[in-house]
Amino acid sequence: MTADSYPVTARTTATRLRERVSYDRAAVHAVLDEALLCHVGFIIDGAPVVLPQLHARVQDRLYLHGSSGARALRTARGEGLAVCVTVTLVDGLVLARSAFHHSINYRSVVIHGTAHEVTDDLEKQSALASLVDCVVPGRSAAVRGASRKERMATTVLRLDLENVSLKSRSGPPGDDEPDLELPYWAGVLPIASVPGRPEPAPDLSPAIATPAHVSTWTRP
Amino acid sequence: MTADSYPVTARTTATRLRERVSYDRAAVHAVLDEALLCHVGFIIDGAPVVLPQLHARVQDRLYLHGSSGARALRTARGEGLAVCVTVTLVDGLVLARSAFHHSINYRSVVIHGTAHEVTDDLEKQSALASLVDCVVPGRSAAVRGASRKERMATTVLRLDLENVSLKSRSGPPGDDEPDLELPYWAGVLPIASVPGRPEPAPDLSPAIATPAHVSTWTRP
Repeated sequence: MTADSYPVTARTTATRLRERVSYDRAAVHAVLDEALLCHVGFIIDGAPVVLPQLHARVQDRLYLHGSSGARALRTARGEGLAVCVTVTLVDGLVLARSAFHHSINYRSVVIHGTAHEVTDDLEKQSALASLVDCVVPGRSAAVRGASRKERMATTVLRLDLENVSLKSRSGPPGDDEPDLELPYWAGVLPIASVPGRPEPAPDLSPAIATPAHVSTWTRP
Repeated sequence: MTADSYPVTARTTATRLRERVSYDRAAVHAVLDEALLCHVGFIIDGAPVVLPQLHARVQDRLYLHGSSGARALRTARGEGLAVCVTVTLVDGLVLARSAFHHSINYRSVVIHGTAHEVTDDLEKQSALASLVDCVVPGRSAAVRGASRKERMATTVLRLDLENVSLKSRSGPPGDDEPDLELPYWAGVLPIASVPGRPEPAPDLSPAIATPAHVSTWTRP
């Protein structure tokens, strides 16, 4: 492990398509920061469960949160919850001359580890602000922060980024040589996630203008 | 269970926010058909693993596929692989006056079940065509279909839609009454996944025009 990359561990060693795998810290962070949500996998009663969750990355930690009553979050107390957190961005549809070589251009980060409850209230407050700011940068300074009661109703989990890998595909389709002369279109259809026009709440005072952190929102 | 909805089972009964949960068949199908990929959770060596995968819905079945060498797909042979498949669409960012009521407008389908390998070659051919058509409708008629060798290199899994639920949130933020007078903007920033301009492969003959299934691609 260097300052610039995550270690290659037993959990993160690729068994297939190794050329698509990276451990580069900056590339991993870029995916985590661009994505709006992650999918968290854990085991309940011996069966896998996958749920979508918001996340916030702060340096080499990932924060998750949810209602203190949610079963997975209750389970995470004490010894922690074994999780696999996966974050995927779709960049384009890869259309080849052959059905076989159809693919997706994507970037996907997979994190294995044990998520622990954040019990320190200062870290919890900071994590909750990050969870707002990671979705809308600058937002936490323009809202009412969480009260003590609201913080009690919310459980925050921390997952250290240690067993982390990034898998990605980019570029044009990779058709086999004999297929290149087939009369079929081949290429990439780029896909992007874009914001629409902000919709003020029906009960918002007309005197309150749309702030820049909303009107100019974009992903890093 | 009626023709119009999936059964409410022990695996799909919501424990929280029940008003956000639906079992409506058409609504479930709409989410599965609009999403470009799913996240598949399973257990390897006692630990959860979550990987992004393309999927195709055909009636009340979901098809997944991958390299026959991939560990999860090898595991699925025989008794099948216990999975949780989750499909999530982000519709908007919900910005409230309070940090606590920030949220996401989303639609998320969670499917629990056992995925089995498709061994019938006719069903496999049909599933592979569906996997292409579910990403780009009409595409499978404009490519070279999978050869026998390519089909051998690919494992297709079928997951029956039985334990299925849809959770969603829509609409404006739900601020608490005392917060309504705060001087903060509140509302929704819609998010959509949109196609860009098609990028022909560098080795594509200029004589081959972009077909309508690419230039007019949109989600159902």
